[in-house]
Amino acid sequence: MKATGLVVEYNPFHNGHLHHLQQSSVKTNSDIIVAVMSGNFLQRGEPALVDKWTRAKMALSAGVDLIIELPYAFATAQASDFAKGAIYLLESLKCETFCFGSEEGSLEAFQHTYQLLLAKKADYNTAISNFMKQGISYPKALNEAYKVVASDASVPLVDLSKPNNILGYHYMEAAYNLNAAIKPETIQRVVANYHDEAKHSETIASATGIRKVLFDEKELSAVQHFLPRTSIEELNEWKTTAQAFGCWDRFYPLLRFTILRHNKERLAQFAEVTEGMENAIWNAAMTSENFHTFMLQIKSKRFTWTRIQRMLTHIFTEFTWEQLQEIDLPTYIRPLAMNKKGQAYLQSIKKDLQLPLVSRVAASKENKLLQLDIKAANLYYLGLQNDFGQSMVGSDFRKIPIFQ
Amino acid sequence: MKATGLVVEYNPFHNGHLHHLQQSSVKTNSDIIVAVMSGNFLQRGEPALVDKWTRAKMALSAGVDLIIELPYAFATAQASDFAKGAIYLLESLKCETFCFGSEEGSLEAFQHTYQLLLAKKADYNTAISNFMKQGISYPKALNEAYKVVASDASVPLVDLSKPNNILGYHYMEAAYNLNAAIKPETIQRVVANYHDEAKHSETIASATGIRKVLFDEKELSAVQHFLPRTSIEELNEWKTTAQAFGCWDRFYPLLRFTILRHNKERLAQFAEVTEGMENAIWNAAMTSENFHTFMLQIKSKRFTWTRIQRMLTHIFTEFTWEQLQEIDLPTYIRPLAMNKKGQAYLQSIKKDLQLPLVSRVAASKENKLLQLDIKAANLYYLGLQNDFGQSMVGSDFRKIPIFQ
Repeated sequence: MKATGLVVEYNPFHNGHLHHLQQSSVKTNSDIIVAVMSGNFLQRGEPALVDKWTRAKMALSAGVDLIIELPYAFATAQASDFAKGAIYLLESLKCETFCFGSEEGSLEAFQHTYQLLLAKKADYNTAISNFMKQGISYPKALNEAYKVVASDASVPLVDLSKPNNILGYHYMEAAYNLNAAIKPETIQRVVANYHDEAKHSETIASATGIRKVLFDEKELSAVQHFLPRTSIEELNEWKTTAQAFGCWDRFYPLLRFTILRHNKERLAQFAEVTEGMENAIWNAAMTSENFHTFMLQIKSKRFTWTRIQRMLTHIFTEFTWEQLQEIDLPTYIRPLAMNKKGQAYLQSIKKDLQLPLVSRVAASKENKLLQLDIKAANLYYLGLQNDFGQSMVGSDFRKIPIFQ
Repeated sequence: MKATGLVVEYNPFHNGHLHHLQQSSVKTNSDIIVAVMSGNFLQRGEPALVDKWTRAKMALSAGVDLIIELPYAFATAQASDFAKGAIYLLESLKCETFCFGSEEGSLEAFQHTYQLLLAKKADYNTAISNFMKQGISYPKALNEAYKVVASDASVPLVDLSKPNNILGYHYMEAAYNLNAAIKPETIQRVVANYHDEAKHSETIASATGIRKVLFDEKELSAVQHFLPRTSIEELNEWKTTAQAFGCWDRFYPLLRFTILRHNKERLAQFAEVTEGMENAIWNAAMTSENFHTFMLQIKSKRFTWTRIQRMLTHIFTEFTWEQLQEIDLPTYIRPLAMNKKGQAYLQSIKKDLQLPLVSRVAASKENKLLQLDIKAANLYYLGLQNDFGQSMVGSDFRKIPIFQ
């Protein structure tokens, strides 16, 4: 059986994801689609709209055969570590190909870019440091440095100012660095701009746009034309049961308490908190009664909104620089959901797996990365700050993969 | 001006406190009553019903002339340190006498007991360790050991199984140990038993009983015959503004989040968490959706309910063993409220004060004990988990003493 791997967040699973899923299957001519999906906290440093189990069900209903959890430490990491963790898991899962959506759409351009940056590594890094010294953010510095080294290129290159191109580039780089057998493939995204606001006249919008409409209009009907019916059903069931969607606005009272319970020295110990950001974060928590005001106070040219949110995620979950530095690669494969095909596939590769397959977390509870996932799940539920959240504490520890 | 000092929590100020206040004044023939009052967390390891400012106003309305805050580190400490901090402050404030309520009522009995325990110190301590080895709580062991050494005494002694007698004993001991000029005095409590439930037919009930009625019946009218009218007015205003009374039931979602955000090793670093209690606390937080269930799961013969609650208070405020060990004596005098007499008294002793007088916290913000008080105030307000609480963060830092 030929398997293709996807790296996903599905927050929530929408028509663009469906397109990507179907096209990936066609383009790679694969029998099995395996998705490595982030848990309850995401790469943009945010709590997910709904928990990972609900998002796994959406994926399953839409045709993904096997959904594996990307551990917290990678799911909430900067792009290169995020990519490394995800590609390593897909490689471990014996996928022949990984297929990512990009604004670019042509694999060749990615390959040219990769070769170019490899050849000009020294110049590129020097340029990055120089741009960083000007006080701009790291992604901006990367992009400016890239423009410098790419200025005299004679082959088509990727535009690395686009967020999905950046991620795609990191996937390819991770695969090369891991010396992986897995082959890259890309599909052009239907929605060109990641941050576009969702327009009601269309059936495809970015997850960011969909979440914005959902939080603004507070009705699932406002976003239903952007999502498969099965996603809407899952969102609806979540809304009925959980009574709240995960987001920083909702989690903020706990975040604020957590920040003010610590002093600034302690805040500086959490992963990604650097360059005095502990002061900005603490001071903003002192005076801000909601998350929006809080963020406006912290915002800086030096750090992207996303980067700041990752600091907050790590403060929320008590994940430190020390822990971050200990982490290298995923140490287990935890399936969240599968269908019969997914199960058969897993059965077929089981004996060759280099990583332990974790179906019952209780049996592997000493694993540090896994403890982090379970803790993140508990804190996510408590973040909802209602009876449902209180009742879900401990559930991730007992849960076995969804089979459908 | 002759000043008498009281050590109080006033949670809330009730008719029994009024009786004690008036009798203290008469018995000591004093011009001024100075109260050293705990902040927002109390010696039983609980958040106060209403904040310290509201309780200070109750005290002022009832006739206390000057209310000084007992710093967090002493207010939430075990009896001997609580007493040491409070008596040291009253001594620093040039009080001639401190007058405590006791079940006993006779100062002579306290003096006999103090002399006896001093004379038989070695036997007493040996007996305590022996009783502790049987797995009972420290206060129980103290009392059993006391019975042993007191068995052949020929003078009247204090019954050290009674909570106010125990506190009184510690006040006296603290005064002796500090070599203080301040003289002890005691008044018999009208309500003999600290833990008695409040009976509606009477006008005096313990604060514990009053809080119980208030939480059970949820109406101020249910407790109004136990409190001066001015206390009821303050409680009523607090209820209208703050929309909630402070208690662990209310604070529990934040406490649970805080416990589960840490691992057991970290929990063991908080003050008073010892002998594996970190395991019991963490495990109970995993499974308990409310504070009552949580406590029932932790309860042990080894530790009193109060002692366990102090552990929780220190976890809530992030107060560690390390910080506790650094603390010796109060390092400032922070008035919370005063009337004209209180102000004149403070003026008259100002030049002789050995400790800095802190009226504007902002000016002394580097003081570690004071930082703890301000942090405890912020976390107390956040514990209320409503808009009022969110809006009060930072207020303790700016507030100046109430003058009335």
